[in-house]
Amino acid sequence: MTTQMIILNGGSSSGKSGIVRCLQAVLPDPWLAFGCDSFVDALPAKMQGSDGGIEFAADGGVSVGADFRALEAAWTEGIVTMARAGARIIIDDVFLGGAASQQRWQKALGGLPVLWVGVRCEGAVAAGREVARGDRVQGMATLQADVVHEGVFYDLEVDTTHTESLECARTIAAQVG
Amino acid sequence: MTTQMIILNGGSSSGKSGIVRCLQAVLPDPWLAFGCDSFVDALPAKMQGSDGGIEFAADGGVSVGADFRALEAAWTEGIVTMARAGARIIIDDVFLGGAASQQRWQKALGGLPVLWVGVRCEGAVAAGREVARGDRVQGMATLQADVVHEGVFYDLEVDTTHTESLECARTIAAQVG
Amino acid sequence: MTTQMIILNGGSSSGKSGIVRCLQAVLPDPWLAFGCDSFVDALPAKMQGSDGGIEFAADGGVSVGADFRALEAAWTEGIVTMARAGARIIIDDVFLGGAASQQRWQKALGGLPVLWVGVRCEGAVAAGREVARGDRVQGMATLQADVVHEGVFYDLEVDTTHTESLECARTIAAQVG
Amino acid sequence: MTTQMIILNGGSSSGKSGIVRCLQAVLPDPWLAFGCDSFVDALPAKMQGSDGGIEFAADGGVSVGADFRALEAAWTEGIVTMARAGARIIIDDVFLGGAASQQRWQKALGGLPVLWVGVRCEGAVAAGREVARGDRVQGMATLQADVVHEGVFYDLEVDTTHTESLECARTIAAQVG
Repeated sequence: MTTQMIILNGGSSSGKSGIVRCLQAVLPDPWLAFGCDSFVDALPAKMQGSDGGIEFAADGGVSVGADFRALEAAWTEGIVTMARAGARIIIDDVFLGGAASQQRWQKALGGLPVLWVGVRCEGAVAAGREVARGDRVQGMATLQADVVHEGVFYDLEVDTTHTESLECARTIAAQVG
Repeated sequence: MTTQMIILNGGSSSGKSGIVRCLQAVLPDPWLAFGCDSFVDALPAKMQGSDGGIEFAADGGVSVGADFRALEAAWTEGIVTMARAGARIIIDDVFLGGAASQQRWQKALGGLPVLWVGVRCEGAVAAGREVARGDRVQGMATLQADVVHEGVFYDLEVDTTHTESLECARTIAAQVG
Repeated sequence: MTTQMIILNGGSSSGKSGIVRCLQAVLPDPWLAFGCDSFVDALPAKMQGSDGGIEFAADGGVSVGADFRALEAAWTEGIVTMARAGARIIIDDVFLGGAASQQRWQKALGGLPVLWVGVRCEGAVAAGREVARGDRVQGMATLQADVVHEGVFYDLEVDTTHTESLECARTIAAQVG
Repeated sequence: MTTQMIILNGGSSSGKSGIVRCLQAVLPDPWLAFGCDSFVDALPAKMQGSDGGIEFAADGGVSVGADFRALEAAWTEGIVTMARAGARIIIDDVFLGGAASQQRWQKALGGLPVLWVGVRCEGAVAAGREVARGDRVQGMATLQADVVHEGVFYDLEVDTTHTESLECARTIAAQVG
C-alpha cells in the first residue's frame, strides 16, 4: 500500500525540520510539509501568551489551552483531508502529551496509512543545538527530549545525535512504499 | 448565518498580509490565517523553478505547473475541511487566473459561506511598496494589480492606496456575522 | 560637499526601514545600510532581557544598560570609520534619548558631513502599522512617536502618515549632494 | 595580551554561524558578531546579481565585483575600529580568495591581535547540511569546502564533521586570553 503521509515526532531541536527538508529533496514525488511551527504561525499573535492559546515559560515549558486545542483539532482534520485528496504530506510534530498526542492523530486519520517516525536526540546534544540556533527559549530541548516519546509506537526511529539529517532522511525514504 | 471563512484576493504588495494580521487582532474570536505564501513554503524547495512547480520570472511573471495545481487542489480541500470542522479561517490569495481561480475555491467550498474581499491598490503605489519591502521580484506588483480582479465578485472591497491596513481590517470585521 | 552619510531618526513603525530600502534603490551609487536592528542582531542573545543589555517591557518600553551603551559607542565609531574610508552609509536609528542621542553621533562624527532626516508618523497611524507588522511589542510605536524627536535638529523631515516610502526616499535623495 | 577579536573562516554550511552563537553564549563578556551574511544584508538589493556586486551562480559559484570589494574594504576598516574602540568582535567569513583574503584582514588589522580559527567540515557532510538548511544555492558547500583554507594559517582549527557547535565553541573560548 502506498504511503501517503509521514509523521515525525521529536523534541525541540532534535533535528526534525532538517530531516523534513532532506526528505522533500530525496523523495522523487513532491511532498507538502506542515508541522507545529507552521500551525503556530497561523495563529493570531495575541494567542501567544494568552490563557486559551500557547505559552512559552522562561524555563522552556510549553502549555496550551482550550482555544489552541480546538483549532489544532480542526487543523488536523484538514491535513488528513489533504492526504485523502491525493497530496503526499510530511508532518513534524512534538507530542507534548506522548501517547495521547498520537491517539489524537490516529482518531483523525481513520484508517489512512501513516509512516510513524520517532526522531531521537540525546538531551544534552539537543540542548547544545538549541544554543547554536539562538532562536528558541533555552530549556525546551532538555524538557522535551524524552517525554514526547513516552508510550508512542513507531514504524522506525532515527537518532540525530550522531547521524546527519540527510542520512536519517534516506533511511526514512527507503521505507516509503 | 455565521461567517466561517474570509477570502482576501489581491495582487502582490497590495497589503493583504498586513490586513490579515490586523483582522486576527481585531476579531474577538481566534482565526487561523493561511495563504499562498504559506502554501509555497510547504512545497519542496526543488519545486521552485521547476517545470511542474512554480517559476518566478525576472520581470515578475509567475507561472505554475501541473504538480503545483494538483497539490494546491488537495490543499484547498483541506482548508475547507478545517472550516467545516469549526475553525475560523482567513485566506489571502492571488487569483492569477481571475474568475477561474475563484471558481476553484467555490467548487471546493460547496455551500460553505464565505466573505469574499477584494484588496485593491493602485499599481504604481503597490510597485513602490514592493521596492520598500525589498524581498520580492520587482514587477510582480504592477503585473498583478488589475488582472487578479478580472471577473471576480466580492462581498466588499477595500483599497489600501490611501487607507491603512487596520482601517481596512475594521471595515471587513464589521461584515463578519 | 559630497554627502557620505544619511542618518534617519524616527520611532518604531514610523517606516524607516522601507525608506532605507527605497533610498538604496533610487540612489545611483551603492549605499550600505545599518541601524539599531542590525546592531541588536549583532549582540549576544543573552543580552536581551539582561540588566546590562536591552529590555523590551510588555508595554513597549525599551531600556538599555551599561554594556549596551559601551558596545554601541564602539559600533558608532566603527560606522563613522566606514564612511571616512569611502563607503556611503545610511543609518536608521531610534533616538530614545532625543537630543542626547544625536549628540552621541555628532561626537563620533567629528566634522563628517551628515544629512539628518527626521521620519515622522502620527502615533495612531504608527500604532496601526505595528499591529499590521505583527512582529513588534505592541505599544512601542505610540511611546516613541514624539519623544525621539525632542530637541533633535534635521536637514529635512518626511512624514509617512500620508506619504509613501518611495516618495519620501525621493525627497531625501534630492538633497544628497 | 587580551584577545579583542576572533575571526572564523570556513566554507558555506560548515557551521560557522552556530559556533558564533555558542561563542556568544559561553564567553563571559559580551561579544558582537558580524560576518559576510550581515555585510551582504547591508548592501542594496540591486547589487545582488549585478556586475559590480555579488552574483550567486546556479552551480553554487560566487563572484564579487569592484563595488563589492570597495565597500567591503571600508566595512573591514570600520570593524577593526570597533575592536580598537573596545568592543569584542567575532567575525565569520568565507575566504573565497584563500590566503589573499586573510592578507586583506591583516592589512586592515595593523598589529591588532586576532585569534584565527579555521572551521573545517568534510565537503560531503557540508553538502548534506546545505540540503537540510534549504535556504542556500545547492553546490556552494562543496565548492568552498577546501578552497577557502588554501594558504591560510590559524591559531586553532575545529572540525564540525563529527563535533557539535557548542563543543567547538568551548575549544575556541578556552584560547581567548
